[in-house]
Amino acid sequence: MIEDIKAAAQRLQGHAVRTPLLNSALLDDEAGRRIFVKAECLQKTGSFKYRGARNAVSTLSEDARVQGVIAFSSGNHAQGVALAAAEMGAPAVIVMPEDAPKLKIDNTRALGAEVVLYDRENEDRDALGAALAEERGRNLIKPFDDLRVIAGQGTTGLEIAEQAAEAGVSAADVLVCCGGGGLTSGIALALAEAAPDLKARPVEPEGFDDVARSLETGTIQINNRKSGSICDAIITPSPGNLTFPIMSKHCGPGIAVSEDDALRAMAMAFTRLKVVIEPGGAVALAAALFHRDDEDDVIAVASGGNVDAALFKTALDRFG
Amino acid sequence: MIEDIKAAAQRLQGHAVRTPLLNSALLDDEAGRRIFVKAECLQKTGSFKYRGARNAVSTLSEDARVQGVIAFSSGNHAQGVALAAAEMGAPAVIVMPEDAPKLKIDNTRALGAEVVLYDRENEDRDALGAALAEERGRNLIKPFDDLRVIAGQGTTGLEIAEQAAEAGVSAADVLVCCGGGGLTSGIALALAEAAPDLKARPVEPEGFDDVARSLETGTIQINNRKSGSICDAIITPSPGNLTFPIMSKHCGPGIAVSEDDALRAMAMAFTRLKVVIEPGGAVALAAALFHRDDEDDVIAVASGGNVDAALFKTALDRFG
Repeated sequence: MIEDIKAAAQRLQGHAVRTPLLNSALLDDEAGRRIFVKAECLQKTGSFKYRGARNAVSTLSEDARVQGVIAFSSGNHAQGVALAAAEMGAPAVIVMPEDAPKLKIDNTRALGAEVVLYDRENEDRDALGAALAEERGRNLIKPFDDLRVIAGQGTTGLEIAEQAAEAGVSAADVLVCCGGGGLTSGIALALAEAAPDLKARPVEPEGFDDVARSLETGTIQINNRKSGSICDAIITPSPGNLTFPIMSKHCGPGIAVSEDDALRAMAMAFTRLKVVIEPGGAVALAAALFHRDDEDDVIAVASGGNVDAALFKTALDRFG
Repeated sequence: MIEDIKAAAQRLQGHAVRTPLLNSALLDDEAGRRIFVKAECLQKTGSFKYRGARNAVSTLSEDARVQGVIAFSSGNHAQGVALAAAEMGAPAVIVMPEDAPKLKIDNTRALGAEVVLYDRENEDRDALGAALAEERGRNLIKPFDDLRVIAGQGTTGLEIAEQAAEAGVSAADVLVCCGGGGLTSGIALALAEAAPDLKARPVEPEGFDDVARSLETGTIQINNRKSGSICDAIITPSPGNLTFPIMSKHCGPGIAVSEDDALRAMAMAFTRLKVVIEPGGAVALAAALFHRDDEDDVIAVASGGNVDAALFKTALDRFG
């Protein structure tokens, strides 16, 4: 699998942003530990999802590319697939929940994709996506349980390994905002090979901590609720059949944080790091800031920045 | 001078952030041209000023370093010098205008510097700074008219040259937020050597366009007003004696933008690029977005991100 990640890194060269590993002396003071933030909110389309999408589309045959791709997503994967497909001349259909942030739906359409909306509470997006893929002969790019996607997201881990070494960080937890586990498992695989003293750990919102519970019990657990969190980007019912075994083997224990802590982390990222993070992209930083049980260095992945202005202002009003 | 910039780049290696050159397909659509943003708001302390400060402190003898440094600044240079001095064990005194944003004053103190406030309308900061430097035997690091500082800021230009080539941009205007001209002249010098088809152009707020008028007339012009702009980071009375000849030789014509356009650019950077830019750091992006006379590629430097939450919310309320 590490070879797939390295191959993905080659394919992404010159296309994906090599996002910086940010640090703030004042944030470190406030946190009582050194915090390094891998700013994937600065990735093309505002989240890491472009990496996996671009890698998946890159591996298609010319024929398959012309047939087009389909994806189902709460919004960030949608935009990543839409842009990667547009860049490579593949038509894209994106299936999105009707309660996804308007910004994400609008952006996906503006990137040239056809958007099909569905009801998150009453429809099964996997079945819907599979049916549409078959009906239209398109290649399905799953949001996380897809080896091409996991390999693409894993390129984030290769960069973290290099940038941590440059920053003089030898051993640290690498906290990753976790939905279905595509980013977390990709990073975990990359680190296991490239920087074994960096340990990936999934971070989720309270009430949607299926991955943490799955890792703890050793079997896949499912969330009671399917929606209703401001951390919409990382709300998935359960870890994937591909991602769970990888996380079980390579990840440390999961962490769950409150929505308030995610908002507080967004405000601190505004003040100290000058990056815009969405709630679901801020849970790892929130864990680094507010759930520490030691003073060790820590790396937090800020996985996305696609947040509406109204919600961002709420974070600033309450915690800025 | 290019050798000084290359030497500065060596000194900054592993200390300054290699900030990304950001791009957004949707922003390009809205602007009608390809826009690349050099995100120096992600630099340590939230602005490019750390580069010049770190280079200046690095060139001090051990004795001079122990004696300490002094700087006068509206806020961003203050923070850059404070952090560079703290990192290298030099005590720092920073002279700041009493109307500087509270965030910048607080941060400068938090970084360990002693802050001395002065009245921007009625006191001459150059005379005050020089007197304090002499009185206390400290090395004065000027905010722009200092060769060590110009060389440090010029490292931004070396990175732009490399990153533009990677992005496939061969010829473009490089729009630079301009106060006294330290960043602009440093970038202009670096580009003249490393990427002669990239042309630096200073961008200023309307009413404070001393550099544009100086370039146009060929002699140093002075602004009528000394304060009263939300673009506080780049309000200086006139270009420097060192920076003006460099800009005259290497820069294209200056551009002036309104405060409203700066706020609008901040809101678009929030939505499309996920970076936080302060008004004075947004004028170059504003020029790229709203003052175009062709559809050519353009590079805009986002020079700083140290903005209070209240003003940032104003930008989002009005233009988000």
